[in-house]
Amino acid sequence: MEIKVLKNILGVNEQIAKENRGLLDSKGIFALNIMSSPGAGKTSLILETIRKLDSEFKIGVIEGDIASSIDAEKIGAKGIPVIQINTGGACHLDANMVSSALKNLPLDTIKLLFIENVGNLICPGEFELGEHKKVILLSTPEGDDKPYKYPLLFRIADVVVVSKTDLLPYLNFNMDNFVKAVRTINQKAPIIPLSAVKGLGLGDWFSWLKGVLTGGKRNA
Amino acid sequence: MEIKVLKNILGVNEQIAKENRGLLDSKGIFALNIMSSPGAGKTSLILETIRKLDSEFKIGVIEGDIASSIDAEKIGAKGIPVIQINTGGACHLDANMVSSALKNLPLDTIKLLFIENVGNLICPGEFELGEHKKVILLSTPEGDDKPYKYPLLFRIADVVVVSKTDLLPYLNFNMDNFVKAVRTINQKAPIIPLSAVKGLGLGDWFSWLKGVLTGGKRNA
Repeated sequence: MEIKVLKNILGVNEQIAKENRGLLDSKGIFALNIMSSPGAGKTSLILETIRKLDSEFKIGVIEGDIASSIDAEKIGAKGIPVIQINTGGACHLDANMVSSALKNLPLDTIKLLFIENVGNLICPGEFELGEHKKVILLSTPEGDDKPYKYPLLFRIADVVVVSKTDLLPYLNFNMDNFVKAVRTINQKAPIIPLSAVKGLGLGDWFSWLKGVLTGGKRNA
Repeated sequence: MEIKVLKNILGVNEQIAKENRGLLDSKGIFALNIMSSPGAGKTSLILETIRKLDSEFKIGVIEGDIASSIDAEKIGAKGIPVIQINTGGACHLDANMVSSALKNLPLDTIKLLFIENVGNLICPGEFELGEHKKVILLSTPEGDDKPYKYPLLFRIADVVVVSKTDLLPYLNFNMDNFVKAVRTINQKAPIIPLSAVKGLGLGDWFSWLKGVLTGGKRNA
């Protein structure tokens, strides 16, 4: 049995992503698409950013997961506007899912929107959501060779966060090798090592974030 | 522009998987499909198994990665027959890729075949490869809540390996919570905690492996 499909499914996604971006810009909201493997620390980084910056920049969050509302509950417990998207099996967020979520967020009060993608170091890289910047997390236990094996996300990253640096003493992760691997495919993205749980290196992350928040829209 | 596609792409994959299985069975080869997030320790577990069991059961390996031949080089350095598949962007192995790899392995000498899938806790679960058993690794730094967020792989697992247990003292990973999470969707799969790097818990893994190698084909 055969069916007809639009060849241009990525083109359709791109169009909806542009509409999302237009809506965000019209409301003065800066949006980050955060991507990583499962359990690399995306939610922990968002929680630490909320703790530090929410009084300055009102934050909103879209949580993407195949199933469960575990992460949205953690964010919601901080009194932050949050929408959980359950993809029901899909391995990434797409612009249409984000469009639906935007309809249910208080866009007139939010200034900084985190879109936490499904935990997957591959597929989310192919779908624009309307974000201003792409944040890629790589946790130290995953190993310093990952940019060679999963090049797409590291290539499109606007910033690369190396998370869980508190575990470095117990691992064979070589930061110089990791930086070298990233630089083979991405010469520009800042690389920020940090540990959200232990509060290490967060200053560099906040500096980057404030830099793009105040200057990013003109450059984006 | 529209194109026609086979609706039944998974059905086609299933047919090729059956052919792979028939070929493996005709050669007396037992095959494991190993799936996990990036950097969870699939290659390390294979290397330790080679070290312990290759003299008893001749081992072969198929390495799946989007890009690079890093893992195949590690395996090949041990003198083990290995084929690297580069998926060129695809987020999982499929039966056709494995069929091609099988044509290039010395099937008359191999008794145990590891198929290391692309690092991805989602997509590989949808594609049968012709394997006899599915091995799912979850590394402790990923967190004990992952079965709720990524249910498919844990549901179809024949065995769940909890890797990197040497890091437990430095993490908030609760093994009881993890076991409980797995049991909500999979009542049968043994759960084997281990650290390949530190040599902890490997005896349970080897016991499981020998059990399926000697009895598994009749039950599979």
